[in-house]
Amino acid sequence: MQIQISWVDSANDPSTDFPLENLPFGVFRAEAGPRIGVAIGDCVLDLRAAAGAGLLDGLPPRLTDACRAPVLNPLMEQGRAAASALRRRLTELLAEKSRDRAKIEPLLLPQSGIEMLLPASIGDYTDFYASIHHATNVGRLFRADDPLLPNYKHLPIGYHGRASSIVVSGTPVQRPHGQRKSADCDAPVDGLVFGPTSMLDYELEAGFFIGAGNVLGEPVPLAQAEDHIFGFCLLNDWSARDMQSWEYQPLGPFLAKSFATTISPWVVTLDALQPFRLPPAPRPKGDPEPLPYLVAAGNQVSGAIDLHLEVFLQTERMRREGHTGVRLSRSHLRDLYWTPAQMLAHHTSNGCNLRSGDLLATGTVSGPEPEALGSLLEITRRGAEPLQLPDGESRAFLEDGDEVILRGWCEREGLRRIGFGECRGRILPAR
Amino acid sequence: MQIQISWVDSANDPSTDFPLENLPFGVFRAEAGPRIGVAIGDCVLDLRAAAGAGLLDGLPPRLTDACRAPVLNPLMEQGRAAASALRRRLTELLAEKSRDRAKIEPLLLPQSGIEMLLPASIGDYTDFYASIHHATNVGRLFRADDPLLPNYKHLPIGYHGRASSIVVSGTPVQRPHGQRKSADCDAPVDGLVFGPTSMLDYELEAGFFIGAGNVLGEPVPLAQAEDHIFGFCLLNDWSARDMQSWEYQPLGPFLAKSFATTISPWVVTLDALQPFRLPPAPRPKGDPEPLPYLVAAGNQVSGAIDLHLEVFLQTERMRREGHTGVRLSRSHLRDLYWTPAQMLAHHTSNGCNLRSGDLLATGTVSGPEPEALGSLLEITRRGAEPLQLPDGESRAFLEDGDEVILRGWCEREGLRRIGFGECRGRILPAR
Repeated sequence: MQIQISWVDSANDPSTDFPLENLPFGVFRAEAGPRIGVAIGDCVLDLRAAAGAGLLDGLPPRLTDACRAPVLNPLMEQGRAAASALRRRLTELLAEKSRDRAKIEPLLLPQSGIEMLLPASIGDYTDFYASIHHATNVGRLFRADDPLLPNYKHLPIGYHGRASSIVVSGTPVQRPHGQRKSADCDAPVDGLVFGPTSMLDYELEAGFFIGAGNVLGEPVPLAQAEDHIFGFCLLNDWSARDMQSWEYQPLGPFLAKSFATTISPWVVTLDALQPFRLPPAPRPKGDPEPLPYLVAAGNQVSGAIDLHLEVFLQTERMRREGHTGVRLSRSHLRDLYWTPAQMLAHHTSNGCNLRSGDLLATGTVSGPEPEALGSLLEITRRGAEPLQLPDGESRAFLEDGDEVILRGWCEREGLRRIGFGECRGRILPAR
Repeated sequence: MQIQISWVDSANDPSTDFPLENLPFGVFRAEAGPRIGVAIGDCVLDLRAAAGAGLLDGLPPRLTDACRAPVLNPLMEQGRAAASALRRRLTELLAEKSRDRAKIEPLLLPQSGIEMLLPASIGDYTDFYASIHHATNVGRLFRADDPLLPNYKHLPIGYHGRASSIVVSGTPVQRPHGQRKSADCDAPVDGLVFGPTSMLDYELEAGFFIGAGNVLGEPVPLAQAEDHIFGFCLLNDWSARDMQSWEYQPLGPFLAKSFATTISPWVVTLDALQPFRLPPAPRPKGDPEPLPYLVAAGNQVSGAIDLHLEVFLQTERMRREGHTGVRLSRSHLRDLYWTPAQMLAHHTSNGCNLRSGDLLATGTVSGPEPEALGSLLEITRRGAEPLQLPDGESRAFLEDGDEVILRGWCEREGLRRIGFGECRGRILPAR
């Protein structure tokens, strides 16, 4: 694979998230309503305008129509081959040798001047728990001897999250009220209060959007699972730990999570991630083989993605003093115990239907290294060991005014960096 | 309140579910696409046709437009007052003294000849666990000494369910495959199989649809909760118990439920249920008072609904022999520990936004009486005591060909019966 050059100069900058090899899809606010855009360097190409200028002529009409939609769903539902065809056309248009530069240049907008919106209308949102390091760390806080439950290595644990409260990067997040036990009292009744959470946390995750859906009653075999994935984003699964520990038995997390989930605006396609795929990894020594419906056969590309992830925190004070923030963790998607394809195949194994635009997420991505912890819960051991920040600040959990920034990218010698942009959210005080 | 007479004769039959006092909303399949209908006796009034014939003239244009939509969402989002205004007009049109009978009669369709569809586009679906009898019965199967968890009496436990696999009454339900431990083996690895569930169950529930939504970050106080409820339906939360017990820790039920949820097609408005509301009940003696945000003040009508519920089972053999089925349970919505208003207020207490058309459900409605158990799990004590049926048949859990029928109605001396129709689903063999 060769590095490609674009006539959009900023796309050739080695530090850009959005070279010609990436071309992620998103939706931005335009005067006449939401529009689909494609990121290239520090610009966005307006796809509706590109279609209007005849630049997409020759592609199937249904595909060009989808480029005029206010959300990505109509594009997503046409499946991976359609999105790949569109991507090839866009690559031609934006490549150095393009003959259409003069027509396209007026349709490029600076990213700095536009507001990004949610990329899709999200029907159902499912969050998994695919990092064995995270599951073990969290389990250890509650059950020191037996941190990992017996089912963990046999199936990708997941649950349904709240779709209505998914917001795009940059949307402020209000500290939620909820029931929690006051810290120094174990008695459930006397110590119970309703008020702002005092254990507000982030979770570093990746999300992936469903492209073509499946029919209710018809599972997607593992070998075909990736045909149903449109692309990836970053996801912050905000969590109120005090509310969570009180409410989650026996039916799982509910209000501790449903107040907000933030995603990054750009959806990076599987095509763009292809050079960074890893082969299906063998199970760690001694671990049970999964049941056959979760085992990849032969040369299937259904392994992990070599995606680097980072979390930064910028406190109110840092912002005031012009400090861009401190890194809280660096983690890797490849460290997940279950692959996205396994999550998807498992999700549909009972016949459950996934629809275009549905969002699946990995769960907190933690790694084996001490700096690879994807939540404050793990970093501070549920607040017991507060994190020391510059200038005497410290954090057990998030405070009002804190901004959490997730970043993600793939890189390898000889290849362009494929970036995800940012997933940001700042904490507003409780109502 | 006086009994009202309709010129639609079948609406005056004391046994009808759909007298003039009910007028539930639903959506049916017409040649030109889905249409909103209103049930009256054994007929359905086509609302789009009624609007076209000028019968809704004088109502706000936005309201008449909503009657032409293919789903109830545009009507739901206008709130209770709008739906009440529409209902008043429909009552006039269908009442004995209506001057418009000649215009309306051609717009009535026999219910027997139409196919009902899902009434709304459902964004998020939340299932609660509001029956303390059910929670206790289920808890007892796993923890004999301590069946009820400490949080139960303090907050309405709930979780997010799968919206995509909600189907309308009459849709067949395919027995799902899943991971389960074979019965006689406790070892998680050796005894683990993937295959059709052998513990397929129903759950008797009521569901309620959100009318006007709330903005993210703005909780709905209990006193206003019912302004956000459009109406009620019956709901069968199909459950695969073997899959559920293996997968549900620590994040709650997932594939054991997400293969299908069946709802009845008619949405019975809160207005129609008004005569059957009960005042907020005091807590049982010795139980803790809920926190203030869950306590009804003064004369709020936010108490229970006196709704009778029944489950019938018709096996393949009964169907063959012309037997309509046997009743498995009779239960009452008034026996819930938490009211619909409390569930809604709690759901939004963290700022979570509900959207028009979202569906909330009560969880299995079981009562204190032995015949008031809302699932086979409870009736057969997880299969240990199979249910004896006529002609030597028996059931530990559901078998292929079984049809489960839920019915619900309100009745009181001197008032018309307000019925919900049926919620049916027949089990198809696994793929």
